[in-house]
Amino acid sequence: MAEKKAGGLAGIVAGETAIATVGKAGLGLNYRGYSIYDLAERASFEEVAYLLIYSDLPTEAELDEFQARITSKRELPKSLLLVLEQIPADAHPMDVLRTGCSALGTLEQENNNQYDVVERLLATFPGMLFYWHHYQQHHKKIKTQTAETSLAGHILYLLHGKAPEEDMRRAVDVSLTLYAEHEFNASTFTGRIVASTLSDMYSAVTAAIGALRGPLHGGANEKAMELIEKFKTPAEAEKKLKDMLSNKEKIMGFGHRVYRESDPRSNIIKTWAKKLAEKTQKENLYSVAECIEKVMWDEKHLFPNLDFYSAIVYHCCGFPTSMFTPLFVMSRITGWAAHVVEQRENNKLIRPGADYVGPEQKDYVEIQSR
Amino acid sequence: MAEKKAGGLAGIVAGETAIATVGKAGLGLNYRGYSIYDLAERASFEEVAYLLIYSDLPTEAELDEFQARITSKRELPKSLLLVLEQIPADAHPMDVLRTGCSALGTLEQENNNQYDVVERLLATFPGMLFYWHHYQQHHKKIKTQTAETSLAGHILYLLHGKAPEEDMRRAVDVSLTLYAEHEFNASTFTGRIVASTLSDMYSAVTAAIGALRGPLHGGANEKAMELIEKFKTPAEAEKKLKDMLSNKEKIMGFGHRVYRESDPRSNIIKTWAKKLAEKTQKENLYSVAECIEKVMWDEKHLFPNLDFYSAIVYHCCGFPTSMFTPLFVMSRITGWAAHVVEQRENNKLIRPGADYVGPEQKDYVEIQSR
Repeated sequence: MAEKKAGGLAGIVAGETAIATVGKAGLGLNYRGYSIYDLAERASFEEVAYLLIYSDLPTEAELDEFQARITSKRELPKSLLLVLEQIPADAHPMDVLRTGCSALGTLEQENNNQYDVVERLLATFPGMLFYWHHYQQHHKKIKTQTAETSLAGHILYLLHGKAPEEDMRRAVDVSLTLYAEHEFNASTFTGRIVASTLSDMYSAVTAAIGALRGPLHGGANEKAMELIEKFKTPAEAEKKLKDMLSNKEKIMGFGHRVYRESDPRSNIIKTWAKKLAEKTQKENLYSVAECIEKVMWDEKHLFPNLDFYSAIVYHCCGFPTSMFTPLFVMSRITGWAAHVVEQRENNKLIRPGADYVGPEQKDYVEIQSR
Repeated sequence: MAEKKAGGLAGIVAGETAIATVGKAGLGLNYRGYSIYDLAERASFEEVAYLLIYSDLPTEAELDEFQARITSKRELPKSLLLVLEQIPADAHPMDVLRTGCSALGTLEQENNNQYDVVERLLATFPGMLFYWHHYQQHHKKIKTQTAETSLAGHILYLLHGKAPEEDMRRAVDVSLTLYAEHEFNASTFTGRIVASTLSDMYSAVTAAIGALRGPLHGGANEKAMELIEKFKTPAEAEKKLKDMLSNKEKIMGFGHRVYRESDPRSNIIKTWAKKLAEKTQKENLYSVAECIEKVMWDEKHLFPNLDFYSAIVYHCCGFPTSMFTPLFVMSRITGWAAHVVEQRENNKLIRPGADYVGPEQKDYVEIQSR
């Protein structure tokens, strides 16, 4: 009963997974048995994507083939470009990806080729976002293919229209690895429910994008940036943040449903945030963020989660804040896909029950007598 | 532990609801306290929609205003028409609604006006489907406004291009009432999870459409029709269905996760199926269906659910089979919306846990040594 009262299925085991383990004592976060520390430091995002989708790390030959397939799948069909052109400039980029994914599902339907669909989405999400972005912001129809072989490089190229510097490419690459998978979070669980009705991959991913969009989930990295940008100096941050806390305002980018003492991904991305802040002369922004981190710990015993310092990394790379959650999508498609495949392997419809707290049965009254 | 092993959250209470109660002894199915039998027999679908969305049955004045608002919101924006024109003729109509809903969410964003969004979707789903249908099938750009005041009449008008006969209008109206709401089913629960991240109404409904699409959920009414159409006579149905059962083929349209002995909605829609089958000289189809019902009960002790005889009603009204689940969407938007509103009133992020069954921690091996 204690579990039930906690609500939100907190503490309820909704199924089994072999994809990731989160927050178990001594384990931190592992993808298919590999520590996130090793993966973020030593593997490329493409190796991690392969690991999640195909269950093991690739050999050099497997990785080459995988990367060649992904880079060859970046072009968008003409009809999808026309759909993207209809989406207004003031739309949220997450809604662009949600609509683009759904539309692609009508043009290239899934048909016993789930891995093709996954690779196609992994390859095309950056093109969808940046085609729309440059079309609406700069009246320009960009090509969605680049010479960049990595997803991180491809994304940065599409944003700036030129090859990125290596440390930015690597920082984004690491962030994609950290964002790739996180067990039964809300968007992944949404995707699994959709898959459990035996619906298609596009429906599952479209649904997951809609869930990730919310500020209590992926949207938190955008809210974190908005918070950091509120303050001009660490001193101002300390004072005003304490005021916000006494007013019981919700601060995004801190704490986590699963982790209790720290988010293992936060330290990794924080190193990159510092490096890029120095490189781009945004040391003050970084100092404000560190001050926010200290106040949140001293006052609330809350630690930064991945979303907090990712915001600084993305900001220093030149991404508009509204693109932070879409970057999350471009990575998490790998985790979502792995979960859809896993759900399908041993499927049972996900359909919980509810406690009825509504009115007792009432007599019907004809409309004239109401 | 028994509950956990059952999987699919069967028997797990995922939250509270005051909207519907399903399958409780002696209660059958109630919407906000009113019996489904009373509602299907004595109320219009618009009264039921109002009841679900606004928590009580409308007075005459409230109903008039509600219907006036809905009928005034049927026109689709030009950009949405252009999006719909990009969706190919061989797309599934559910994917048309999923994409249309998502695209509308970019054009008319939610902004503290959740009820407006709900009414807009209730008003526009028929237009989205039939605009696309006539454009792709008959190279015709139809107007999405009609003189029909009821949703049922509007849908039939858009399908046939003329005012429907009264008993067809009433049969579809009853089916919409029966399909409107059903507690924490997979699509509704999907919508609630999306809402629980504080994402928008369009994301929740788009996700729910993707979940409803699967054959283990809303897609069952299409599978039921395909089954009934397989057999030319009741005798053939009896023989071949028994063969299918001995081959352990899954038969859609029978049994239910929540109901154990019968689906209270089935008897209501069966009466209409018989009436329309007689009217349209499809008595044989109805006889085949009744024979299937008998075999399923005798052999498996399984009863028809709402999807089974709904299929006959929709078929007799002239709907292509691929539109059966989209009709479900046009009704269920009311239940989904009621649940999103309820979730938001007392929100907590829905985020279950998982049992990890993957590999123990492994040492990382550099790619050259794999």
